[in-house]
Amino acid sequence: MSRRLKNAQLHTLDIDTDSATPLHQQLFLALRQAILDGRLKPDTRLPSSRSLAADLKVSRNTVLNAYDQLMAEGYLVSRIGAGSYVSDQLPDDLLQRKGSGSVSGTPKRDIYLSRMAMPFKGKSLQRQYRGLPFSPGLPALEEFPFEDWARLLARHWRRPKREFLVDNPVGGAQILREAIATHLGQTRAVRCHAGQVIVLSGSQQAIHLVVRAFAEPGDAIWMEEPGYPGIRDAIIAAGAAPISVAVDDEGFSLERARKIAPDARLACISPSHQYPLGQTMSLSRRLELLQWAKDNSRFILEDDYDSEYRYAGRPLSSLQGLDDDNRVLYVGTMSKVMFSGLRVGYMVVPEDLVDVFLALRRTIDSHSPAAPEAALADFISEGYLASHIRRMRLLYEQRQLCLLRLLEEKLGGILDVSPQESGMHIVAFLPKSIPDREVEKAAAEQGMLVRALSGFYNLPTDQNGLILGFAGTAEKEMPQLVDKLARIIYSKAE
Amino acid sequence: MSRRLKNAQLHTLDIDTDSATPLHQQLFLALRQAILDGRLKPDTRLPSSRSLAADLKVSRNTVLNAYDQLMAEGYLVSRIGAGSYVSDQLPDDLLQRKGSGSVSGTPKRDIYLSRMAMPFKGKSLQRQYRGLPFSPGLPALEEFPFEDWARLLARHWRRPKREFLVDNPVGGAQILREAIATHLGQTRAVRCHAGQVIVLSGSQQAIHLVVRAFAEPGDAIWMEEPGYPGIRDAIIAAGAAPISVAVDDEGFSLERARKIAPDARLACISPSHQYPLGQTMSLSRRLELLQWAKDNSRFILEDDYDSEYRYAGRPLSSLQGLDDDNRVLYVGTMSKVMFSGLRVGYMVVPEDLVDVFLALRRTIDSHSPAAPEAALADFISEGYLASHIRRMRLLYEQRQLCLLRLLEEKLGGILDVSPQESGMHIVAFLPKSIPDREVEKAAAEQGMLVRALSGFYNLPTDQNGLILGFAGTAEKEMPQLVDKLARIIYSKAE
Repeated sequence: MSRRLKNAQLHTLDIDTDSATPLHQQLFLALRQAILDGRLKPDTRLPSSRSLAADLKVSRNTVLNAYDQLMAEGYLVSRIGAGSYVSDQLPDDLLQRKGSGSVSGTPKRDIYLSRMAMPFKGKSLQRQYRGLPFSPGLPALEEFPFEDWARLLARHWRRPKREFLVDNPVGGAQILREAIATHLGQTRAVRCHAGQVIVLSGSQQAIHLVVRAFAEPGDAIWMEEPGYPGIRDAIIAAGAAPISVAVDDEGFSLERARKIAPDARLACISPSHQYPLGQTMSLSRRLELLQWAKDNSRFILEDDYDSEYRYAGRPLSSLQGLDDDNRVLYVGTMSKVMFSGLRVGYMVVPEDLVDVFLALRRTIDSHSPAAPEAALADFISEGYLASHIRRMRLLYEQRQLCLLRLLEEKLGGILDVSPQESGMHIVAFLPKSIPDREVEKAAAEQGMLVRALSGFYNLPTDQNGLILGFAGTAEKEMPQLVDKLARIIYSKAE
Repeated sequence: MSRRLKNAQLHTLDIDTDSATPLHQQLFLALRQAILDGRLKPDTRLPSSRSLAADLKVSRNTVLNAYDQLMAEGYLVSRIGAGSYVSDQLPDDLLQRKGSGSVSGTPKRDIYLSRMAMPFKGKSLQRQYRGLPFSPGLPALEEFPFEDWARLLARHWRRPKREFLVDNPVGGAQILREAIATHLGQTRAVRCHAGQVIVLSGSQQAIHLVVRAFAEPGDAIWMEEPGYPGIRDAIIAAGAAPISVAVDDEGFSLERARKIAPDARLACISPSHQYPLGQTMSLSRRLELLQWAKDNSRFILEDDYDSEYRYAGRPLSSLQGLDDDNRVLYVGTMSKVMFSGLRVGYMVVPEDLVDVFLALRRTIDSHSPAAPEAALADFISEGYLASHIRRMRLLYEQRQLCLLRLLEEKLGGILDVSPQESGMHIVAFLPKSIPDREVEKAAAEQGMLVRALSGFYNLPTDQNGLILGFAGTAEKEMPQLVDKLARIIYSKAE
């Protein structure tokens, strides 16, 4: 039995001639909703396209389009010579109960999340750098040779090779893997060939992959305390347990680590330049840790994030190059020596783990874009990168000296600062009476990213200080910024 | 007690004046190795820089550089007026046992991998598309408006905004999130606002994040059989259990799924255009599955990979737009409508899950590059994308017809092919006597990517056919390609 629809019912359809959504689409959505919420019942005959068009004051094509779509999606059926009917194949119990649907979501509902995802529920993201003054790791963007970079990019984009438009190899373009292998051999004493280099979208991806490759939910992973929050988050997101091991003047201590947790699947360390405190891991500690890995079939993640910049001599050699048992996963990034918006990092993995890491990478992100990789390979092999790093090393040395001088001048009595032999930031210790997080907050309100040292600790800490990036701030801007910072700190000291 | 070193010992140092590695670096590495393997014992005095330079016929600066580096890294100590000595702080038991270190890795060793990584050990990667003829999902690259694209990119690269060089928001550039939300609302009846759109490096990243968010190791996840291998791999890499549910003419069946595994954390489906078979999920199946998710607090991953291309009318509406309980995670990609080398995909998530997904995304890949996102936002909002899709829809329709005609002509008696109402590939069924994997292999040797249908099945199957992408192959090239394919198939039929 078919029911004849009162046309009056369809006058309630919401059709807005000023909307960006085409009229036929609006009509389709409105009729669909009427069917779903039971106002238009199965087997109801719809008005003819001509009469509905007249009623709604739209063109007949608009109605025909909407009817076609409803038919294609199974809401309507057409009976030859008899017009369009609401399908009687729709499951009755699933209709009528439908609400109008809301974009804003049920405000409170139980959601079952995995225990890897659960710790991130309701936590707001840590503030991003966004290039604010004093951001640690922010390079001198204004000094980057963008004209050269744009020319190299354009070289590959102008008449893009077909291979740039389709899938890039999972491990990155071969020319870039070769350029990075050579660069790391020469500058970081890393021992590898191109096949061991996996190009990624950044060091975070490498950290994630290493943690996932070795740790199962519940497994212990040693990390430095204080340490890089991105490592902690990656461990938590794998369901594993980050074990914080306090560093000292010689960096990460195996002895201390074993006292806290006798065994770990992985040790995550920054031996060249501890993040954020800046120590270098001593040679005997390095040898000890390598021996531990060898004896226990464990692995070490070496986070080598900024050691290209060393002011007291050449960069220190990597831990990877000391490893004679292929136990080190070496992780590096172009974010510091170029800029983080480039999104290129890399890892160097032992030969017998290359296949696993390529496969794991493919499960999270098929591959990186090819054209920027080709441009980057040129940038490295044609010498632009080495020359940029040389220039920046001199510039950052000056910037650090300038910042130290200004801090001594304006805040000498309050802050305890030492010069850094390498890297892009200094640590300025505050008296206990001035909580670092309050300074961080007040500075953020004035457009500066001054990271609180205590925020890099996982466990409760007495450490109280500021991480001040100097590389990304021009000397001529520093006096004004240090003045602002001094006013904030003095206001808290009162 | 200090031991005087016989200079003769140092004559064995390997210094190669033709190498790309600087001489001081070579000397540093050679001396370091001699210390590490015990040839140079703790407390040994090194020759003066002058005499070593003379012996090795290198400049004195070369030797001084190497000694400085060895000192900085803790291998040597300097005694004022008495020269350089091998440090006596080195842990004796860790020296001497060192081998020379090998780049090629211990050929066979036990490696403890997590159970997420283990399934990928020793498995070679599935062949990548690399733009070969018949690749499914390969678009008509030669038809893409690269001049417009290069101009939009250059607009943002020429004088890059500072914000493009530093950290992009984790969810993507706001302008792109807005452009995608509008585009999806208009073309796919997706209901969302920009804040629910998360821009990613591709749909694989979205699949990974959804699986990780809801599944723990051991949890069941329903997926389609046959289905997309990238989904299966993501499930396995999360340690979860992929439950293959055979599709039929109406697509994924909840009833069948529950018979195989009564409960699942997640259902991964391609309702608009089943991959690879091409069915559309029926309306009643859609409503059933949404009701299941609502009743059981479960979620649905909607993989909407190519439904912009529908030849029989407008694209079908998304499942997401039908969902009144915010249970659908909608996943899309720009790889098909633009090109996969772009590396842009996206997901649309319920409002109350945005924070979790942003945080999880940050643990695997901090953010995407900003400049291409800005260019893409322009490409969408200035109408280039819509117009490109319109042109390609007509072109692909022609290409499909051409391929069908040629297959009928050359292989009509052997292949069983039906036209597809949407998408970029057809399925050509083979007689059982001609195994599809053999055809795939022979075609690969001739430079064609003809995927075996049986390769998309997880369970043993009788299905035997070829997936033939038609979108990326020009009509004028098709006769020759189909000839080649016909020769391969006839040779197997003999």
